[in-house]
Amino acid sequence: MSDSLKDYRDHVGFREGKHYKATLFNSKQILLGLNCLDPGQVQPVHTHGGQDKFYLVLEGRGSFSVGEDRFDAGPGNVVWAPSEVEHGVRNEGTERLVLFVGMAPAPGP
Amino acid sequence: MSDSLKDYRDHVGFREGKHYKATLFNSKQILLGLNCLDPGQVQPVHTHGGQDKFYLVLEGRGSFSVGEDRFDAGPGNVVWAPSEVEHGVRNEGTERLVLFVGMAPAPGP
Repeated sequence: MSDSLKDYRDHVGFREGKHYKATLFNSKQILLGLNCLDPGQVQPVHTHGGQDKFYLVLEGRGSFSVGEDRFDAGPGNVVWAPSEVEHGVRNEGTERLVLFVGMAPAPGP
Repeated sequence: MSDSLKDYRDHVGFREGKHYKATLFNSKQILLGLNCLDPGQVQPVHTHGGQDKFYLVLEGRGSFSVGEDRFDAGPGNVVWAPSEVEHGVRNEGTERLVLFVGMAPAPGP
């Protein structure tokens, strides 16, 4: 398989306690990966200083917080969290939640 | 609906002749949108000077070219075309092809 091609399903994972993260592609300009949340798991509200971030929901449903906004999102929804804006996501459903995530530029080491 | 939430299905479009593009979210650091190709349509091989690009296949199948590599990709596949690497995509199938696309940083005006 080409180094330029990945299937997100090969990178999905889950762990007890904290949500699971995987990197798909990475450069200085953008980090692309997955965030995977089992039912009940939470990515606490946080901000990135300098990075714009997006989530695309691949599987399941997430309860998102972006700035003052609160909304649920499912497959095909894209969530935008610009630099300095607080954001987070909770899996309040019964299915696993799989999110394709990008941050630009990539966070520093 | 929150300004931070979009459904890609609200932005899909097609046109005769040339493939259709839509912007979902845009900052200096990243441009997120859709590329939509009817059967037979082609995004010719091209390069971006400075931008890293990804495609995530949402619907249909695409025949991709990235550098020397040639491969088909379908829903759930992520294709990575770093800055300066030639890339393009053809819809050689019978279904419409819908691609979620990002470029970081965003191309200049």
